[in-house]
Amino acid sequence: MKRYEQYADNIAELIRTGVLAPGQRVPSVRYASQTHGISPSTVFQAYYLLERRGLIRARPRSGYFVNAKALDQSGRSFSEPLTAPQVGESTEVDVSELVFSVLGSIKDPNTVPFGSAFPSPMLFPMQRLSRSLASASRDMDPRMVVTDMSPGHPQLRRQIALRYMVGGLILPMEELLITNGALEALNLCLQAVTQPGDLVAIEAPAFYACLQVLERLKLKAVEIPVHPRDGIDLDILAQTLQRHPIKACWCMTSFQNPTGALVPEARKRSLVELLREHQVPLIEDDVYAELYYGPHAPKPAKAFDTEGLVLHCGSFAKSLAPGYRIGWVAAGRYAQKIERLKLMTSLCASMPAQAAIADYLQHGGYDRHLRKLRYALEDQQRAMLGAIARYFPGQTRVSQPEGGYFLWLELPEQVDSLQVFKTALAQGISIAPGPIFSPTRRFGHCIRLNYGGIWNDASDKAMQTLGRIIHSMVTN
Amino acid sequence: MKRYEQYADNIAELIRTGVLAPGQRVPSVRYASQTHGISPSTVFQAYYLLERRGLIRARPRSGYFVNAKALDQSGRSFSEPLTAPQVGESTEVDVSELVFSVLGSIKDPNTVPFGSAFPSPMLFPMQRLSRSLASASRDMDPRMVVTDMSPGHPQLRRQIALRYMVGGLILPMEELLITNGALEALNLCLQAVTQPGDLVAIEAPAFYACLQVLERLKLKAVEIPVHPRDGIDLDILAQTLQRHPIKACWCMTSFQNPTGALVPEARKRSLVELLREHQVPLIEDDVYAELYYGPHAPKPAKAFDTEGLVLHCGSFAKSLAPGYRIGWVAAGRYAQKIERLKLMTSLCASMPAQAAIADYLQHGGYDRHLRKLRYALEDQQRAMLGAIARYFPGQTRVSQPEGGYFLWLELPEQVDSLQVFKTALAQGISIAPGPIFSPTRRFGHCIRLNYGGIWNDASDKAMQTLGRIIHSMVTN
Repeated sequence: MKRYEQYADNIAELIRTGVLAPGQRVPSVRYASQTHGISPSTVFQAYYLLERRGLIRARPRSGYFVNAKALDQSGRSFSEPLTAPQVGESTEVDVSELVFSVLGSIKDPNTVPFGSAFPSPMLFPMQRLSRSLASASRDMDPRMVVTDMSPGHPQLRRQIALRYMVGGLILPMEELLITNGALEALNLCLQAVTQPGDLVAIEAPAFYACLQVLERLKLKAVEIPVHPRDGIDLDILAQTLQRHPIKACWCMTSFQNPTGALVPEARKRSLVELLREHQVPLIEDDVYAELYYGPHAPKPAKAFDTEGLVLHCGSFAKSLAPGYRIGWVAAGRYAQKIERLKLMTSLCASMPAQAAIADYLQHGGYDRHLRKLRYALEDQQRAMLGAIARYFPGQTRVSQPEGGYFLWLELPEQVDSLQVFKTALAQGISIAPGPIFSPTRRFGHCIRLNYGGIWNDASDKAMQTLGRIIHSMVTN
Repeated sequence: MKRYEQYADNIAELIRTGVLAPGQRVPSVRYASQTHGISPSTVFQAYYLLERRGLIRARPRSGYFVNAKALDQSGRSFSEPLTAPQVGESTEVDVSELVFSVLGSIKDPNTVPFGSAFPSPMLFPMQRLSRSLASASRDMDPRMVVTDMSPGHPQLRRQIALRYMVGGLILPMEELLITNGALEALNLCLQAVTQPGDLVAIEAPAFYACLQVLERLKLKAVEIPVHPRDGIDLDILAQTLQRHPIKACWCMTSFQNPTGALVPEARKRSLVELLREHQVPLIEDDVYAELYYGPHAPKPAKAFDTEGLVLHCGSFAKSLAPGYRIGWVAAGRYAQKIERLKLMTSLCASMPAQAAIADYLQHGGYDRHLRKLRYALEDQQRAMLGAIARYFPGQTRVSQPEGGYFLWLELPEQVDSLQVFKTALAQGISIAPGPIFSPTRRFGHCIRLNYGGIWNDASDKAMQTLGRIIHSMVTN
């Protein structure tokens, strides 16, 4: 055992036994080095190891701290939302009116954006990106506009392939197609593998944008329950695949929107295997992949795909560059078909935006930014859970996702989340009511809250107001 | 009559009577000022007036020249391509394979890009745009990513509305939606007004991207002949509207791709009126609107729309910023429907690209750039027509568009344009063969040539090679 491993183990033991409490600062590098007679670099190595193990984490300019779980700090533990496993029937999809009114509600910059689908843009390196944009577009060979239209900017595709590689996934560049955000990727994927009228297995609850795409493409949905911790219910999916001629399965395998569920690796493997048996393509929407709080990036289901049946969709919108509208799909055996659909739909994604992100990935310090972003989101989750503990009724059930920036709340049965939405909006607070996440309008007493905004007194006050609104509905 | 008007009239008379020949330099400002005892600014005003009348034009750094028509210079006049008016039957659309092989052919930067759909990016102010990109993205309020997603960047929409206004068209901002290029706009428009299986009246020949969109949306086409000078045949359109349940009409009213046809204003008015009678929406694809060579911008059909039935699609891809993928649609009564479809398809267009173009429109000197661009394209048209006169068989018929950057050639009957495409490509020259412009594979002896590249010896040599290939097919 190396010296730094030994020292790391000592600290780990102090954490395990509670000597070092969650949130507490671990000894500074200088102090530890002097005290234990080891070199500063050994201490650094040890802390780095502990960080990777998820035991401590760095806060910029203030040292290393013991990782805290939210429930430890709020002083109250939460029950998970329940799922109601049932084999779904297929439904026509029509959710738009409701969704558009929720989307409209977050446009006012004075509204507290708990209903938003985006994290605060303040969490992103917009200035650094702007420099990348300037330099990349200045150096851009104008001819690439024609030659690199499709499947996209070669340097960007290379950088994305490299990130897959670091994550242990060897993807040939040919599979990678750049899109106008993940939403377009999702549209193209569904269009590539279905015809109007086909059945698609989706999650319940599901991200409403998926419902909108189904509606637009005139597809029918079969809802598969999602457990707020482990994700899609594989037993029910298996039954559904036997009962219905499912043409595609759409699934967010990591930090699902809205529940935050993370399908464990073994279950991702089973999911891929199950779909492979039925030769049903999996459209894996993995836009929150980089927003994990644990020590390691969760593997995508795509990692277990041996037949090119998984279409893996990613995006920089949630992790780096909102508004740039740059996403991608690694489309397996459907890559060429999707490339052609893309050419027929919108030709290509904005070239300067592609070039800027390629430049940033190469020179901008993406991993450093992501580390900071993950810490910020984890902190904000803790703050919001604390507020729920303080202000919401005791029967409230809450998911506690290990990544992303959404909480999924099951409120007491008698609470109508659409009513909560309206009442809260009148007081300048937006939330996402449960029924927008289901074509059959389930989840009437559930809401999704976004903690991707920078937490401040106004956030706390808004949570207090929200709690009061919900309390009043419980009492009535 | 003002002094400068008098002097302008004198020069106009000299041009009319042939004293000043086409291509000849008019007296320099200094010379004219000294000779006629008028101030330089009076001379400038006069030349500016003559320029607006289309009689003379400025060449950067070399003074004003009498406008020349191509046929005057080439020493040979061309016959226009013929149209074969006939009432079309509806057809399923499937053109992709052929189109993709043509698109693939222009990706090699060493290929002479006569088959390209784009003008040379060298004609665009890429450096100036890059500066706009840097400054606009630096100053961008990150929150706008969320608040201005849809219908698009407010400043950009305002600038576009201003340009419409200058052209005499009062459009409420609410009608304007920013898209990922005009291709997405076209997709959204067709989707907004049709269902799969519906009939759409299109031009024959038609831009192949339109055929691809029809194919993607599973629409059927009814082809309406296009006269290479005046555009779509209104009599046949009228018959078609009576015989078939047409759900939309798709039309390029100015500098049509591929023929270059410009529908005269009076006929645009009739077109709108005819469609209004049948309550059929007109999707007006007007991406070449800014590329007119005459003194005035041609009015779009949209200018005659009184019922919100015209969906006018524009783009900056052909006039300013290729690769930025910024287009728009002024969608009349369909504006809200299209805004929602857009939200469900790709959320919004790249924000920095939108901000950059808004900044450029405001500060970058767009009109100055356009003036230069139009001169360059007109020059290049003249050069290509000259080469056709020198190298192509005498029976060749050619359109002589008053804008854009395409020539439409009708080769002798026995020439197979697909064969020309293959043989030319083997020699490093791409062309666009006629059949890709028709779902029924008409125009087998026609080709479209792009003169949007900067003309040089290689261009001339390529035309010579092309001429030889075609000659050999006539002789066989």
